[in-house]
Amino acid sequence: VRVEKTGPIHVELISIGREILRGNIPDSNAVHLAGHLSRRGALVHRITAVDDSDRAITSAITEALERESHLVVTTGGLGPTADDRTLGALADALKRPLAVHPHAREMVESAYRRLHERGLVALEGMTAARQKICSLPIGSEPVPNAVGTAPGVLVRLPGGAAVLCLPGVPEEMRAVFDAAIPMLKDLIPNAHVARREVEAPTADESALRPLLDRMSEEFPAVWVKSHAPGFGSENVLIRVTLEASARTRQEAETMVEGALRRLLALAARG
Amino acid sequence: VRVEKTGPIHVELISIGREILRGNIPDSNAVHLAGHLSRRGALVHRITAVDDSDRAITSAITEALERESHLVVTTGGLGPTADDRTLGALADALKRPLAVHPHAREMVESAYRRLHERGLVALEGMTAARQKICSLPIGSEPVPNAVGTAPGVLVRLPGGAAVLCLPGVPEEMRAVFDAAIPMLKDLIPNAHVARREVEAPTADESALRPLLDRMSEEFPAVWVKSHAPGFGSENVLIRVTLEASARTRQEAETMVEGALRRLLALAARG
Repeated sequence: VRVEKTGPIHVELISIGREILRGNIPDSNAVHLAGHLSRRGALVHRITAVDDSDRAITSAITEALERESHLVVTTGGLGPTADDRTLGALADALKRPLAVHPHAREMVESAYRRLHERGLVALEGMTAARQKICSLPIGSEPVPNAVGTAPGVLVRLPGGAAVLCLPGVPEEMRAVFDAAIPMLKDLIPNAHVARREVEAPTADESALRPLLDRMSEEFPAVWVKSHAPGFGSENVLIRVTLEASARTRQEAETMVEGALRRLLALAARG
Repeated sequence: VRVEKTGPIHVELISIGREILRGNIPDSNAVHLAGHLSRRGALVHRITAVDDSDRAITSAITEALERESHLVVTTGGLGPTADDRTLGALADALKRPLAVHPHAREMVESAYRRLHERGLVALEGMTAARQKICSLPIGSEPVPNAVGTAPGVLVRLPGGAAVLCLPGVPEEMRAVFDAAIPMLKDLIPNAHVARREVEAPTADESALRPLLDRMSEEFPAVWVKSHAPGFGSENVLIRVTLEASARTRQEAETMVEGALRRLLALAARG
């Protein structure tokens, strides 16, 4: 994948962990990342949740890169236990062996010292389990984890694409993601997104269709979407959302405001 | 895919809708379906969220079937507007043309009549938008939607696998899924799942690893998983979950209870 300087970057998210596949927890990490990256103007194309298995994780990463993603962000599977398999699977996907990364090792040692001082873990030195979390695919950069023990992992690929691996515990995920953003500033845009929502005077999405089709034709750069709350809801009226992304806030606001005025004019005409 | 009568069925979920990829809403449908199907003993292998685009949906369905899923369940994209694209994309994936299904047409007409009587929609007859929601890939069965207008769609494939398409509005999704379960009783098992959770006397997942490795070796049929709440949490202690699935509740309880006793014995030994 060669990252072009124009156009929005394509992002895929991969959430790793059987607890998501069992329906035990909602995938709040994906919501956080998708929202944050979208508000910056990135296009999140796909979110995939897979099991804690080497084969499933390796396939998901390989497929996401084959779909020409500029950035693939994984969450989960970075911890010390046997079902934390992300780095081994990433190494397989990239065909790069794992090796203890000196800087990651320092991060892990100092994290366990910090937790030991808080009385939370024993000071056992570099056990096999701890060594695992600082063994990264060759050529990776560790990303500091201010909350937990396992660093994030950033791999830049030839051509400009990148894979970022974040921990699965939401608080750690956010801390590592925040630390990774400045490292990715050439890749993650800082666009502005403007959004408007109006209520249509109908509960019938089928009646709105010709209007929405026309809007999409006239404003290809504005995302026009109807949301049916469902006929069982208290308020059954359709909501229509307009969204536009641009380099400046003003540009995005102007685009979406123009589309909204046109929508209201078309609707008034009936 | 030929569905074997033994072993758990493999399920994939596909969630369709840009609002998920934008991080505007959590994918609560996937949580509901994954939880329900897992509790019945099915193995949900992958959850994929894709955009409202023909190509993305067709690829996601094709890939899920190529991974030898017995059941693929999609949510979203069944409505009347232009960005509701699931049935067209499914038709492409299965290489079966769309045609108005007489029974689906009756369901849609009667749903709009019902909503008209509640004063919610105009009685416009079979508009293009309404005809779209009863145009199914040839060989499909419509599934009644007691809440909204768009029927669900069930396609049985040669070999015994099936694709089930559900609406995206959560209340409609649940109604259509409930109606589909009896239609899928040869495919969806009715296993019992037993579950135990214990708190480990440590916050250090790396210290638990040898114990959990041993449990996985001794009890391959029991899912043993540690959950780190994260070192920033109020209660930092690791929780360990044990889960087993079997044909009878008693069998599942016996399996998980035996594993729990062994875990406590190993832990007491240090």
